[in-house]
Amino acid sequence: MRAARLARMSSTPPPTPGLEGHLAESQAARLASLEEFLRIPSISGIHEYADDVRAAAGWLADAMRSAGIENVSIEETGGHPVVYGDWLHADGGPTVLIYGHYDVQPVDPLDEWASPPFAPVIRDGRILGRGAADDKGQVHAHVMAAGAVLATRGSLPINVRYLFEGEEESASIHLHDWLVAHRDRVPADVAIISDSGFFDDNLPAITVGLRGLMYAQIDVTGSPGDLHSGSYGGAVQNPINALAQIITALKGPDGRIRIPGFYDGIKPPSTRDRELMEALPEVSEEYKSRFGVKQFIKGLTGGTDLKIEEVFSPTCTICGLTSGYQGPGSKTVLPARASAKVDFRLVPDQHPADILKKLRAHLDAEGFSDVHITDLGGDPPARTDPDEPFIQLVAKTAEEVFGMPMQLVPLIGGSGPSYPFVHDLKLPVATSGLGYPDTRAHAPNENIRVDLYLKHARHMARLIKEFSA
Amino acid sequence: MRAARLARMSSTPPPTPGLEGHLAESQAARLASLEEFLRIPSISGIHEYADDVRAAAGWLADAMRSAGIENVSIEETGGHPVVYGDWLHADGGPTVLIYGHYDVQPVDPLDEWASPPFAPVIRDGRILGRGAADDKGQVHAHVMAAGAVLATRGSLPINVRYLFEGEEESASIHLHDWLVAHRDRVPADVAIISDSGFFDDNLPAITVGLRGLMYAQIDVTGSPGDLHSGSYGGAVQNPINALAQIITALKGPDGRIRIPGFYDGIKPPSTRDRELMEALPEVSEEYKSRFGVKQFIKGLTGGTDLKIEEVFSPTCTICGLTSGYQGPGSKTVLPARASAKVDFRLVPDQHPADILKKLRAHLDAEGFSDVHITDLGGDPPARTDPDEPFIQLVAKTAEEVFGMPMQLVPLIGGSGPSYPFVHDLKLPVATSGLGYPDTRAHAPNENIRVDLYLKHARHMARLIKEFSA
Repeated sequence: MRAARLARMSSTPPPTPGLEGHLAESQAARLASLEEFLRIPSISGIHEYADDVRAAAGWLADAMRSAGIENVSIEETGGHPVVYGDWLHADGGPTVLIYGHYDVQPVDPLDEWASPPFAPVIRDGRILGRGAADDKGQVHAHVMAAGAVLATRGSLPINVRYLFEGEEESASIHLHDWLVAHRDRVPADVAIISDSGFFDDNLPAITVGLRGLMYAQIDVTGSPGDLHSGSYGGAVQNPINALAQIITALKGPDGRIRIPGFYDGIKPPSTRDRELMEALPEVSEEYKSRFGVKQFIKGLTGGTDLKIEEVFSPTCTICGLTSGYQGPGSKTVLPARASAKVDFRLVPDQHPADILKKLRAHLDAEGFSDVHITDLGGDPPARTDPDEPFIQLVAKTAEEVFGMPMQLVPLIGGSGPSYPFVHDLKLPVATSGLGYPDTRAHAPNENIRVDLYLKHARHMARLIKEFSA
Repeated sequence: MRAARLARMSSTPPPTPGLEGHLAESQAARLASLEEFLRIPSISGIHEYADDVRAAAGWLADAMRSAGIENVSIEETGGHPVVYGDWLHADGGPTVLIYGHYDVQPVDPLDEWASPPFAPVIRDGRILGRGAADDKGQVHAHVMAAGAVLATRGSLPINVRYLFEGEEESASIHLHDWLVAHRDRVPADVAIISDSGFFDDNLPAITVGLRGLMYAQIDVTGSPGDLHSGSYGGAVQNPINALAQIITALKGPDGRIRIPGFYDGIKPPSTRDRELMEALPEVSEEYKSRFGVKQFIKGLTGGTDLKIEEVFSPTCTICGLTSGYQGPGSKTVLPARASAKVDFRLVPDQHPADILKKLRAHLDAEGFSDVHITDLGGDPPARTDPDEPFIQLVAKTAEEVFGMPMQLVPLIGGSGPSYPFVHDLKLPVATSGLGYPDTRAHAPNENIRVDLYLKHARHMARLIKEFSA
């Protein structure tokens, strides 16, 4: 049914001047509103910001109501809330479920920001601030798009449900359970996960696969407190040495992950995947010039092999290390403890719970059974068929707005909560968004290009319109 | 000459009631004065505290003048100053050179202190505060001891030179050069380095050997900024993995340091060393109960073997690790850089410059020629013959004050600036002090027992008196 409906859409006329005119007129007000949203430091991963996360949920709920979205509610999840809202008056029309998140990543290292992360500024055509791209800017564009259509036409041509999460940067700890428990409240035909971006600076992309994530903290404990390294360094084991052994036991210099069974059940890319990856632009030169990358892992030099390797192989990245003295100059201590943060990016059909179990077994087998592993959450990977009609429609409407063909990306390196949408709600999921390589998501100086933010809202307004046909 | 003079001393009578009476009467004032000294945050290793280090030098110079010490001067070294003073009116008498340091270690982790590190308090018979034991408490006791003798007798029975350094916790960067340049100004017969402690809680000790130190920072650099681990973890090398490989390449799980040539020219303990080590109390149970140590390195379980191994073997201790995200929860970054602080404790006849060269060569050979090593200073190891008459005199006077035999320790795990005293000034060096295992030097809650602080001053007053005989 869905396929038949989608097939009819290609002959839909462009949106009326009314909508385009409204979008143009409201531009300054929309940017000011986005800046207000970005000022709320909704860092979900740090407990001290819990009130700010809730404040962002409240701000977003108000903005949704102002836009004309109905049944707006702040839904408790056991953690940071989900903000839900809908507009369901297109009787017999299709229903799209739009997902985004209003929480953001932590901001350190703070001294590398050109301006304070929660005091957004527009500079050189970019909005600079934590969350500008990932993902408040995208969430905001969706709400504004609905608002523009409702303001100019009084109704939406399709049914829309909005689901904005507050824990995406904390591995979506409660989303899966909430979605499964409330699946009857959110029936839909398709889902848009708006939390990704362009493949390249000027290449809009639609993504149909997200890798999974398993994030853990590894803690090695020695003595109850730091000791004088001179007095005790000759007798007492140093937790840092154990941590270094663990890190080398996780991944070899060849880039291969050493956890037994880690690669079990992995699906290699299909012929269609290879074809789509082949069509994507070369990345190696960009990595070299933009990030100063001198050497890629596994001896790769570029081409389709690098593009495939970097997403179709699972990864193990140590995201941080902490131990002992870290200030300037010298302090001669034998640290009491050493910790590492580690993320595993998973590909179909790996599962975070299974990987966590295998990590534990590996550390036990390597002699580190007394080392503590804290599960910091994760998502299983999930993919949608790139040739689904809805995916094709998202691509077509994007092409109209962006003026160039949409890149179709079978799988991206990043992770997200698409698994329950694909596997529990059984929806085709288009992941789109407005990040680009220099968007600096998760890093200092996160930013979003103003023109892309505005085009994204236009694209969503247009998609809503054409999906109704 | 020195030996003959020392040999006569053993029949000297105990100090007069005048001195003991003065020490008793001035006790409260001396403790208040020490607290004042401890309040100055003279952290030599952190640039922001440079003015405080100089303030501590000024405070100390004033205290020395008040005690009656003469020719007090603040000597420029190119870094933090040396505070010098003397009393040289014992014509024809011996001259003792007393060394200590007025700078202190950094204080982090700050949240583990029971009270602020620079707001000293007396609690349960202990003075709690950074520098209480290492080394301001000891420096202060020396000055007060001279002051007590001068106040009660108007003169000292021997000549004394005081040399108080401001960079001991920064690897005594300028002391060696200053001492060599000014060696004609500080002629002496013997030296006391007052910067160590008891072997056990109640066992006063005199140490005749200090290990050397080479302290370095190892920096591995990747991309110019942190990257999104999902987007780039599959393609870009992580500096943390290189750092972990470096750490495992420095020391094996067997505790053996893997730098080629590291153990060259090491002098094994002599029969006399073994005899002295044998006489020292067992340490393994103490380590287990006090520090929760479950396992010693190299499979040792205790006894003389552990006591010898922990000081007569050089060590390599990673003192700290820094990289990427270190806050609570998760942040999915591929860090731009990773750093480790490392100290090597050296035994005769290793030399820090040689070890640094071998470390560089080892990293180059292991494929890490692009990894940066910063030399953060060090001292060569140095030893004095434990059977020197002066050493025996220090032991005898300590026994009288502490009421028990002095432990004679041939070599301790810690390091210090004794090398130029032993090798350039050619002096017998007694290292003594008032730390004890729970003194927490270099760690949170550094403290010194009040009774030991007071006994140390009495010991020094007595040694000055008896050395004159």
